[in-house]
Amino acid sequence: MLLPYNEWRHVFKLDPAKEIEEDALQAIATSGTDAIIVGGTDDITLDATLDLLMRLRRYPVAVALEVSELEAATMGFDTYLTPSVLNSGTLEHVIEKQVEALEEVGHMLAHADLVGEGYIVLNPDAKVARVTQAKPLADDTVIAYAQLADSVFRMPVVYLEYSGIYGDPKLVASVKRVLKQGRLFYGGGIDSGERAKEMLEHADTIIVGNIIYENLEAALATVTATR
Amino acid sequence: MLLPYNEWRHVFKLDPAKEIEEDALQAIATSGTDAIIVGGTDDITLDATLDLLMRLRRYPVAVALEVSELEAATMGFDTYLTPSVLNSGTLEHVIEKQVEALEEVGHMLAHADLVGEGYIVLNPDAKVARVTQAKPLADDTVIAYAQLADSVFRMPVVYLEYSGIYGDPKLVASVKRVLKQGRLFYGGGIDSGERAKEMLEHADTIIVGNIIYENLEAALATVTATR
Repeated sequence: MLLPYNEWRHVFKLDPAKEIEEDALQAIATSGTDAIIVGGTDDITLDATLDLLMRLRRYPVAVALEVSELEAATMGFDTYLTPSVLNSGTLEHVIEKQVEALEEVGHMLAHADLVGEGYIVLNPDAKVARVTQAKPLADDTVIAYAQLADSVFRMPVVYLEYSGIYGDPKLVASVKRVLKQGRLFYGGGIDSGERAKEMLEHADTIIVGNIIYENLEAALATVTATR
Repeated sequence: MLLPYNEWRHVFKLDPAKEIEEDALQAIATSGTDAIIVGGTDDITLDATLDLLMRLRRYPVAVALEVSELEAATMGFDTYLTPSVLNSGTLEHVIEKQVEALEEVGHMLAHADLVGEGYIVLNPDAKVARVTQAKPLADDTVIAYAQLADSVFRMPVVYLEYSGIYGDPKLVASVKRVLKQGRLFYGGGIDSGERAKEMLEHADTIIVGNIIYENLEAALATVTATR
């Protein structure tokens, strides 16, 4: 049984622009994680996306595409995560890219499960923060953005993205308290079982990415610690 | 029984900045309309909003506040409609004003029914289009914006706003066809029973505003024609 996004607790994120050996891929896919998100910030091509998809489809695990590069959108995934960077300083990353994507591939994805992610980007030094010109936010403003995404827009996912650093568990807990319906995704700096466990006390779902490429054993430990 | 927003078919919109005599207010409130939205584009004060609210609360009809001016937000309404102008040319009207409002009055409205409205502003000459720097859109782009609001963001309401002119029923029908879960609100130029009926064939809900102040009989006819 492949789990739908609203039942995910632990998720690995694989970047099509990064190499991963077959053994490592198999270990990740059969680790007991709830899903694998295919996504990255740049150099995402259709070929690399399809290659990763085909390699992953041999394992009984949910595979989702995070649609950041229009050109790389393709059929065959279980779920299509559609990110908007809510605290971006440009309309492009809040709404314009997404509208453009729907104009171009909306017909192809008309019957797919499109899941809007309201990203709040919280590490100003991360690449994604620079690319989207993310505005630095006070904690109260983070909470207001989360409420807007959850209670007003009613987005299915609110995503706290610390990309590259480990975030503030207290702030994650505060955001979780105000959510009425959306799932709280957390990403950033999870490189050990302890951190995985700590963030899962507050977030509904943790996303583990970079450590896969740096220390496979540590990455796998984030799954076992949360089971 | 006051109807929730997702059961409204016919709605009157009253502008707190405009005068309305007691007889006319009573006729509107007891017309058989499903709800009354209190909202306008400018000069909205707390005093005028409260005055209108108190006058309306004597009648058994749902009363919603469209929260465009933060200063005028007050308790006592059944529903709080929170508009974002999706095709605005500025972040302010897509997301920033809304976040600011939640930061300031979010605690007060924490338990209220906040209903996000994804406005698509389609009359470039309307005051709301100028204030929000709304971008003119080709029909396909209107549909992409509606899909984004409905399928990705999963907003409860998609609002086609022609403010001041009567819209294109074919485009309204095309938008209705792509919606998966959101309610389709239509506003603009409904000044007769015929037009009310025609737009209600496509939209889930029609909003009748200006004609109330220009021709009360014609406004009331928009209710009877749709019953």
